[in-house]
Amino acid sequence: MDRIAKTPEPPYYAVVFTSQRSMADAEGYEPMAARMAELAAQQPGFLGAESVRDETGAGITVSYWKSLDAIRAWKQQEEHALAQQLGRNRWYDAYQLRICKVERDYGLPSAPKS
Amino acid sequence: MDRIAKTPEPPYYAVVFTSQRSMADAEGYEPMAARMAELAAQQPGFLGAESVRDETGAGITVSYWKSLDAIRAWKQQEEHALAQQLGRNRWYDAYQLRICKVERDYGLPSAPKS
Repeated sequence: MDRIAKTPEPPYYAVVFTSQRSMADAEGYEPMAARMAELAAQQPGFLGAESVRDETGAGITVSYWKSLDAIRAWKQQEEHALAQQLGRNRWYDAYQLRICKVERDYGLPSAPKS
Repeated sequence: MDRIAKTPEPPYYAVVFTSQRSMADAEGYEPMAARMAELAAQQPGFLGAESVRDETGAGITVSYWKSLDAIRAWKQQEEHALAQQLGRNRWYDAYQLRICKVERDYGLPSAPKS
């Protein structure tokens, strides 16, 4: 995963997932998080993702998508649905997920558009 | 700043700021980052913010706003404009800023709406 995703010209969509990890099950969580990043990148309509977690377990992951349909399909993907269930029951103390339409973007250095 | 912002029912707006800190000037950066968080929270239309930076200097800050006008006014706020200039010239190796309309959200535990 790039630290700063190379996304196309807006409009496109973003899923902002803000979470607080529980202390539980690091040995289960980490391979699943890596697997989900790999699997998301293979989904139709995936444009990129950015993820940061600090030493307190607070994290923000933003994934970028071509369309709301692509986001919906990823939410329903079978292996991902199982991961979401484990997330709710075991890995996260709290999270908030926000589905957004990206209307404008700019950066430093001025990003070459894909 | 709450780790997970308590935002109202969508629609509202989000500014996703993904950045890579340079190694330069930690002693200048940290008080300015704290001051900007404090100042943003006093702006009209501010709804909340979430921020995570890891030990490699990768960071994601998401701030939430009532309207595009509120985002524009914050971008132009005088002290913030100076901080942005220092950010470009000194504190960040790279960043990307995305202005988004939040269309849906949900979480765990189901967040009480403000």
